[in-house]
Amino acid sequence: MYFAGIDIGGTNIKMGLVDKNGKVLVSNLFKTGAERGYSAVVNDIVENLNLLCAKSDMQVSDLLGIGIGIPGVTDTQNGVVVSAANIGWHKIALAQDIEKKLGVKCVIGNDANCACLGEQKFGSGKELQNIVFITLGTGIGSGIVIDGKLFCGVGGAGAEAGHMLLMFDGEQCNCGHKGCWERYASVTALIQQTELAIEQNPTSILAKIAGGKDKINGKTVFDAAELGDPVADKVIANYLKYIAEGLISLANLLHPEAFIIGGGISHEGDKIMRPVEKILNTYLEKSGFLPHISVISASLGNTAGLIGAAALVMEN
Amino acid sequence: MYFAGIDIGGTNIKMGLVDKNGKVLVSNLFKTGAERGYSAVVNDIVENLNLLCAKSDMQVSDLLGIGIGIPGVTDTQNGVVVSAANIGWHKIALAQDIEKKLGVKCVIGNDANCACLGEQKFGSGKELQNIVFITLGTGIGSGIVIDGKLFCGVGGAGAEAGHMLLMFDGEQCNCGHKGCWERYASVTALIQQTELAIEQNPTSILAKIAGGKDKINGKTVFDAAELGDPVADKVIANYLKYIAEGLISLANLLHPEAFIIGGGISHEGDKIMRPVEKILNTYLEKSGFLPHISVISASLGNTAGLIGAAALVMEN
Repeated sequence: MYFAGIDIGGTNIKMGLVDKNGKVLVSNLFKTGAERGYSAVVNDIVENLNLLCAKSDMQVSDLLGIGIGIPGVTDTQNGVVVSAANIGWHKIALAQDIEKKLGVKCVIGNDANCACLGEQKFGSGKELQNIVFITLGTGIGSGIVIDGKLFCGVGGAGAEAGHMLLMFDGEQCNCGHKGCWERYASVTALIQQTELAIEQNPTSILAKIAGGKDKINGKTVFDAAELGDPVADKVIANYLKYIAEGLISLANLLHPEAFIIGGGISHEGDKIMRPVEKILNTYLEKSGFLPHISVISASLGNTAGLIGAAALVMEN
Repeated sequence: MYFAGIDIGGTNIKMGLVDKNGKVLVSNLFKTGAERGYSAVVNDIVENLNLLCAKSDMQVSDLLGIGIGIPGVTDTQNGVVVSAANIGWHKIALAQDIEKKLGVKCVIGNDANCACLGEQKFGSGKELQNIVFITLGTGIGSGIVIDGKLFCGVGGAGAEAGHMLLMFDGEQCNCGHKGCWERYASVTALIQQTELAIEQNPTSILAKIAGGKDKINGKTVFDAAELGDPVADKVIANYLKYIAEGLISLANLLHPEAFIIGGGISHEGDKIMRPVEKILNTYLEKSGFLPHISVISASLGNTAGLIGAAALVMEN
C-alpha cells in the first residue's frame, strides 16, 4: 500500500509513490509552469499522478493518501495555501480541490517542513525525536520536529529560521526585513561572498578557477580551498561562522538533539558539519547551556521533499 | 486543597500556597543567602514552608505538590538543577532532596519557564494555547508554551530567547557570546542606553531629571519623555526597535498567538506594547507571514514565578 508524495517547487514538481517505510517505488518530475495559472498546475498533478499509478499497475483510488509540499505558508489543518509567492498562490484550498478531483485524502504543508519530517522519519534523524532541519539554498528553509511531531506555529507561519535576525539593520532581505540569517548563510549569500573575494583578490586561485562571474556556484570556493587557496579558506571560515551563529540562536531557543543540514551544499559534508558543530558546541560548553547538539548532513537529498510530503499524510 | 509555589531568585525566595485556580492564599519572602551553601537554603525553604502552612492551619503533608522555579537550567524530568550560576548550584537533585525531607511530590523548572506557565494558565495568556513569554529585566528571560504545554528543549536547556543573536559580533554578553538580544533589549541595556544619551546630551531634560548616574533606572527615560524630551524619545524609539527585532525573530520561528511581556518595565504598558506590536505586525503584513501576533503585558507581576511554579507541579 502506497502514499503519494508531491513536492511543488518554483521550477519543477517532483512526485513519487512512497511506502510506509519511506521507500520510493516510482517517481517522476515535470515543469511547474505556474505562470499558466493554478488550475493548469492542478490538472498536471492529477494527470501525472494517474500516469505514475498506472505505471505501477495501481489506481489513484488505491492510494492511502496524498501529501503535498508547497514553497510557502500553508495552513495544514484547513488544507489551505496561505501564501506561496514563487508560484503566485494565495488563499487556495488545495487539499480540498485535490480530494474532490481524486477522492483520496490530501494533506498539504510547507516544503521545508515536509523535508524536515522526511529526514526525521526516514533519513538522518530517524533515531531522534527533536531536530531542527535547515536547508541551505537560494534562501534558508527550515523545519522543526518536537517530540516526534512537526511544529509549524499558529496558522503554519512558523519555522522560518531563515528570517531570524543575524545582523541588526544588516543586508536587505526579500521578506522586507534587514539582516536576516539567509542573507548571510544561504548559498546565494555564499556566492555573493565568493564574488566579492574574487573582486578583492583578482590574482587568487579562487579568481583563476572561478572562470567568470556567471560560473560561480556554492562549490567554487570549496574547490579553491582544496587547491590550498588562503583567500578561499577565509571566505569559507566566515561563511561557516554565519551558519554557526544562526544555529547558536536556534540552540538557545529550541535546544534540539541535532541540527540536520540539507540543500546542495550539504554535499560538502564534514567540511561544513565538523567546523560548524565545533563552533556551536564550544559555545554551549562555555555558556553552560548543555547538552551538546550534533550537526549532521541530511541523507534523503532531492527526494526529502516528496518523501516528507508522503510522511505528512501518514501522520495526519 | 493547595499547592506550594516557590520562586528561588539570586536575592530572595518567594513562596506561596496556591489553589488550583492560581489564587494565592498566603505568601512570604525571605533572603536566599546562597553564599551559605545549598543545604542552608534547602533548610530555610523547609522551615518557611512549615511556617506558611501552619499560618493557614495546614500541614506540609496536606499539600498536593511543591513546584520550584530556579534561576538556571533545570532538567524537569529528573528533578535536577543542571546549572544555576547566580546561586552556585550545579548538578543538584533538588526535587528528590525536597521530597525526602517533606514527603510531598516536588517538580522543579526554570524560573522564566514557570512564570510563562503561570501567565498562560492564570494570567494574560489564559485564553491562549501558544504564547512566548518574555521578561525584560537584568537580562531577558523567556518561556514558550506550545499547544498549552511548556516547551523547554532537550535537557531543559531551551527557551533562552535572551541569547538569540541580534547583532553579529556585537556587544559582549555574559554567556560568552557577542551580540545577544539581551545586550540590547534588557532593562540593563536600556539603562546603559540612557546613560550614553545623558553623556551625549548633558543639557537635556533627561540629564536634568536623572539626578546622577547611580539613580538612573528603567523608568527614567520614560519620565523624561513624559516631560516632552526629544532625547528621551529617541532612546525609547531605539529601545523599542531592539525589543521588536527580537520578537520578529521569534515570530518567524515560533509564530505564537501572542507575546506576553513581563518584568518591571512592562508597567509602562501601552507605551511599550503598542509601538512594539505595530513594528512587529507591519513586518508580518509586508512579508506575508500572517496571522498577526498580539503583544500584551503580563498580569501576574511579582507573583508570576510562584504561581507558575505551582502550575508546574499541577501539570506534571
